[in-house]
Amino acid sequence: MSPRRSAVDASRTRERIVSVAVEQASLRGLEGVTIGSLAESLEMSKAGVVGPFGSREQLQLAALEQAGKIFREAVIAPLEGLPPGIERLGRMIDNWIAYLAECPFPGGCFVTAASTELDGRPGVLRDRLRAYVDGARAALAAEIVACRAESDGPHRPVDELVTTVIGITMAVNQEIQLLDDPRAADRGRAALRAALGLAP
Amino acid sequence: MSPRRSAVDASRTRERIVSVAVEQASLRGLEGVTIGSLAESLEMSKAGVVGPFGSREQLQLAALEQAGKIFREAVIAPLEGLPPGIERLGRMIDNWIAYLAECPFPGGCFVTAASTELDGRPGVLRDRLRAYVDGARAALAAEIVACRAESDGPHRPVDELVTTVIGITMAVNQEIQLLDDPRAADRGRAALRAALGLAP
Repeated sequence: MSPRRSAVDASRTRERIVSVAVEQASLRGLEGVTIGSLAESLEMSKAGVVGPFGSREQLQLAALEQAGKIFREAVIAPLEGLPPGIERLGRMIDNWIAYLAECPFPGGCFVTAASTELDGRPGVLRDRLRAYVDGARAALAAEIVACRAESDGPHRPVDELVTTVIGITMAVNQEIQLLDDPRAADRGRAALRAALGLAP
Repeated sequence: MSPRRSAVDASRTRERIVSVAVEQASLRGLEGVTIGSLAESLEMSKAGVVGPFGSREQLQLAALEQAGKIFREAVIAPLEGLPPGIERLGRMIDNWIAYLAECPFPGGCFVTAASTELDGRPGVLRDRLRAYVDGARAALAAEIVACRAESDGPHRPVDELVTTVIGITMAVNQEIQLLDDPRAADRGRAALRAALGLAP
């Protein structure tokens, strides 16, 4: 096997392992991702599973990063080329609701689940998730600020709106995943638009 | 030992076991509550732990029920005697935020954590949690409806407001537990009042 071919294979193997880790974490939590369970699912040796990452924790971090990438590809990437403002924020909301309704993770929103799982467990995973949530809040705040020039009327503070928007998406995730409520997506979209003062 | 004394002792033992189970579930999830871990924490035999409940699942159900009782005692019980309406809803919000800020569970809001943990795990625990969330949503809807007679202005649909209120409390829980944000409680209270059209 040529060195190049070998590098491609190694990268593909890594991707396969991360992909199954994301799926398992979505269903069982990040603590439920074990080298043993991955080796069984992937029909690989334990050494082969952990090898590309060096440790179980690095593998869990890779799964967390991959989950963030899947979210960005579904919700943010399709907005490319749209300038910040009301139209872009409205599209982002629609993408976010669609992502929750057709969730790419079998166990529902990955970040919400990881958040309640990790909040009481100090460590590298919690720190990384916290940085991810902080970054997402800052990005959402910037999108909201960019709409201010286009709309008048009374405004609520930006960080309060960020809390309301993120909260509504968490509630919608619960209504879809736990309550099996078929109206959750439409109701959530309306709640988000009302909170942000966007046209219905 | 008299039969009566024995019944009191049995009840106390049961309470002690449930109390530790609630604490463990708050930190590790309901799946993290095992007979072994409880026996170790309580310095009891495994048979002594499971005996009063009959099974691990019944013990987990008792922990879920106890968590709901703790929420009701902190948030709903202090409203006794207040008629439904704006004052009562405002007090409920204050109690809810105080409960999140001074959370009686070491790992943060029990129901939010259980929800993301159990949503992909069909079974008795998930069914019970779903019924609990459905009941809480209906009770909150009734409180909001009772305010309508007292206030004018445009109203959002009641079930949409329920989603927004529950969502904001979930976001506040994340901001307190994961982000360690000292402004989370005040911001959450303001977000809830704004969403419900209550005076600041």
